[in-house]
Amino acid sequence: MTVALASPTPADIRLLCRDDKFRAPATANLCDGHVQANVIILPNKFAADFRALCARNPVPCPLLGETLPGDATVPARLAANADIRYDLPLYRTYVDGAYVEEKRDVAKEWKEDSVAFFIGCSYSFEAALTAQGLVPRHTELNRNVPMYRTKVPLAAAGVFGGNMVVSMRPYPLALLPLVRETTRPFVLAHGEPVAWGVEGARALGITDLDGTKPDFGDATEIREGEVAVYWGCGVTPQLSVMDSKIPGLVLSHAPGHMLVLDMLNKDVCV
Amino acid sequence: MTVALASPTPADIRLLCRDDKFRAPATANLCDGHVQANVIILPNKFAADFRALCARNPVPCPLLGETLPGDATVPARLAANADIRYDLPLYRTYVDGAYVEEKRDVAKEWKEDSVAFFIGCSYSFEAALTAQGLVPRHTELNRNVPMYRTKVPLAAAGVFGGNMVVSMRPYPLALLPLVRETTRPFVLAHGEPVAWGVEGARALGITDLDGTKPDFGDATEIREGEVAVYWGCGVTPQLSVMDSKIPGLVLSHAPGHMLVLDMLNKDVCV
Repeated sequence: MTVALASPTPADIRLLCRDDKFRAPATANLCDGHVQANVIILPNKFAADFRALCARNPVPCPLLGETLPGDATVPARLAANADIRYDLPLYRTYVDGAYVEEKRDVAKEWKEDSVAFFIGCSYSFEAALTAQGLVPRHTELNRNVPMYRTKVPLAAAGVFGGNMVVSMRPYPLALLPLVRETTRPFVLAHGEPVAWGVEGARALGITDLDGTKPDFGDATEIREGEVAVYWGCGVTPQLSVMDSKIPGLVLSHAPGHMLVLDMLNKDVCV
Repeated sequence: MTVALASPTPADIRLLCRDDKFRAPATANLCDGHVQANVIILPNKFAADFRALCARNPVPCPLLGETLPGDATVPARLAANADIRYDLPLYRTYVDGAYVEEKRDVAKEWKEDSVAFFIGCSYSFEAALTAQGLVPRHTELNRNVPMYRTKVPLAAAGVFGGNMVVSMRPYPLALLPLVRETTRPFVLAHGEPVAWGVEGARALGITDLDGTKPDFGDATEIREGEVAVYWGCGVTPQLSVMDSKIPGLVLSHAPGHMLVLDMLNKDVCV
């Protein structure tokens, strides 16, 4: 039996997940106005390094909050009565940096030294772009956003390093100032673009100038008079953690299956 | 007449500057234990973008504080009774991004819309390295630290962009973990290194692998078994501002002539 709820609240979504009744293909476009978070769960001995990674690279890794070690309660400031072991639609597990499987909950995998980190997501500023009539191309095409590994090294932090990942949305060059201004306030959701255009692509080390061969997500269309605009992407901290090959179990949300927070998009803005 | 003070306090140094009696070649090695700050003074209309540049790139641009617009008083948390128009030993002026001259004070240049920004400096962590017996090579050689423009783009912020500048200190590979650990706590003074070694140089786009041709500062010696270790550098925000060519007058400290703060090195640590 599938469940259809009209205008579900974030708490509704989390409870559907907890009862294993959530069956949408992803959390995108659910709960307008509310923040969704990328999730990474690590052993506590790597928590200080991960916290430093986020502090030193706040554009791709905007840290919204974290749990106490071994306590699966999401901070109330982010979501009320939320349990990170159950309240995501779909999780992924990794051992020694290698993907193992997807799971509906991580009750068995959550340990007494587990710490969950919550990272801001571009859905927050995409809502603002759409409200300005600047509908992201991948939304128009009903695809996933294209993402690229860049050659830009992160500021290393303990065991974590690697390169920045960016997401890309094409816009007419004349609208670039408005695009930048619209996403700039979202400081805990990647904020303004990091770079744009052919010169930006070169600085980032991106060679796919027509948007047809992204490293992650789906191809897009860059139309006449448009430039590729690049934002920091929340896949960055995930790749950094996986590439670090820290020993043991790491958990994350499955792509597109984010934690839906009570927190509002305006709460991640200056 | 030159003035020689035994063990001057930061307030002593600032008053010498104010009275135009400071004649040391630089502020390096003065007032052990106290923070020295890079200084940038901008028209207020660019202040929000500069603040964002620092927030988005905290490793090369650690913002310690700022004045109110038109009020030359340094925040008391940084230094008591300090006036940014007079209390540096030497200033530089720039118009439309082009260097004009060095001045002993900027009383005439300070405007009602001027805002001064104070940026952390590597002197703070160099003291900690030296205390660990990890004396920086340029200190041993009595030279300036070598610095490099990198190919790493900053996360753009309004009118400001450009690339990260790094400083370099060579260390034996075996001591790298201790070097990283020693500077890691200095989060408002560039913190741990961003990269190291040949692979790090490649990631940063640095081709001078033997330390003989830095872009700024002096050549150094990389000895047998040593690797180049790279830290974010406070020259980054200065270059970003100058390269942006914002219209009008910009002021900064002259190289090596920093603002000596009452703030202690431990105050820029986590």
